Amino acid sequence: MRYELYYWPEIQGRGEFIRLALEAAGADYVDVARGSKKGQGVAAMMQLMQGQSRIAADQTRLPLAPPFLKAGQELIAQTAHILDYLGPQLKLVPRDAAGRRYTQQLQLTLADLVVEAHDTHHPIASCLYYEEQKAAARKRSKIFIAQRIPKFLDYFEQVLARNPRGPAHLVGASPTYADLSLFQVVEGLRYAFPKSMKHGEKAWPRVAAVHDSVAALPRIAAYLASPRRIAFNQSGIFRRYPELER
Amino acid sequence: MRYELYYWPEIQGRGEFIRLALEAAGADYVDVARGSKKGQGVAAMMQLMQGQSRIAADQTRLPLAPPFLKAGQELIAQTAHILDYLGPQLKLVPRDAAGRRYTQQLQLTLADLVVEAHDTHHPIASCLYYEEQKAAARKRSKIFIAQRIPKFLDYFEQVLARNPRGPAHLVGASPTYADLSLFQVVEGLRYAFPKSMKHGEKAWPRVAAVHDSVAALPRIAAYLASPRRIAFNQSGIFRRYPELER
Repeated sequence: MRYELYYWPEIQGRGEFIRLALEAAGADYVDVARGSKKGQGVAAMMQLMQGQSRIAADQTRLPLAPPFLKAGQELIAQTAHILDYLGPQLKLVPRDAAGRRYTQQLQLTLADLVVEAHDTHHPIASCLYYEEQKAAARKRSKIFIAQRIPKFLDYFEQVLARNPRGPAHLVGASPTYADLSLFQVVEGLRYAFPKSMKHGEKAWPRVAAVHDSVAALPRIAAYLASPRRIAFNQSGIFRRYPELER
Repeated sequence: MRYELYYWPEIQGRGEFIRLALEAAGADYVDVARGSKKGQGVAAMMQLMQGQSRIAADQTRLPLAPPFLKAGQELIAQTAHILDYLGPQLKLVPRDAAGRRYTQQLQLTLADLVVEAHDTHHPIASCLYYEEQKAAARKRSKIFIAQRIPKFLDYFEQVLARNPRGPAHLVGASPTYADLSLFQVVEGLRYAFPKSMKHGEKAWPRVAAVHDSVAALPRIAAYLASPRRIAFNQSGIFRRYPELER
């Protein structure tokens, strides 16, 4: 099946967690809003969401926001939920039901961290400029760095330590989409808060090892070196404002 | 099966979405942290989460935070994810896979709204007092009321309007856990922002009708009138600070 991923074309954002899974599996997919053919681009994505396109005419179930995935006739939204759907098809979850559930639980926990990472620079509202909420952003970032990053990464370190199949993966004995997402979260935190992560990361050696092993997966390494990987930038979830780290 | 729900005993919070589902189905469950028997109470919940209890000794997969559910030997965390697990068992989702997925997608969209509702009074950090972040809370609430509530409730109004089985439910022709959660969100928003909701709700007649029909389900009506239903208060997700509505 050819998957159609719909997401903003100029940021990694939440779409990146889906892209990483599709890339790691070598799946056949189109990043629709980044395309320039007929029926592609941001306008096509917006029309579908607003129920105005030809594809939307066949749908009674539309998403509120990207990312969403078109798989056959079905539209599926919500980042973690898309990964839960793709997991078995891309062989990125354990085969047993409890293992699949636990992987999704970890993904949703990572999603909570992602919301908090975003809100470090936009604590008041996404619709306002960063400059309009800089004072609050400083306060939120300070606590995020001191308390929230450790809370989450301590937890994932423990998840790895407790894995009966060894600490190389969050669940089971091979990479899951949650490992790929943990890689992305570490990348993002290192980009946004380089000094703090450099200082603090010693406390999370297993997390760092998962990051490195994901980066070394042949398909992921090829993806990261390709133009398909969008660079971090000041429009995404993880942004580098040096003043937020002081 | 007797389910064991673990959640803070003195607030509705995220646990309430699970309680409503268990109550609507007449399920056999224990609200563990509210109990006073041996192995119950908040201490028991904390010990389990921290891997220190007898139950935890059998577990390699521990949650980061409540709510979580013990179902047989399995611990399941993350509110929406617990509902996805319970849905088929409690007959609170459609039987087909696509319908079950769509219900979960809607639940995760409600969960996004719940995070934003919480952050209206805690935009900087949950670990600080409201009084320490009141200025930012006013700014965040203003935009939440003006833009975010309408964005989400307009969406759910459209979801109801597009349901081929009619606008009485979000998905299919009978109540799902997402309907129960929409009830709870409307209750919460009315509690936190009574003037704004009174003024704005006319725009969402289908959403209000779902709220009313859920409240009238015999088991839910009985639950809401029982001491098991904790009242809204100033420790939960939805709080009433009149100054945030001005």
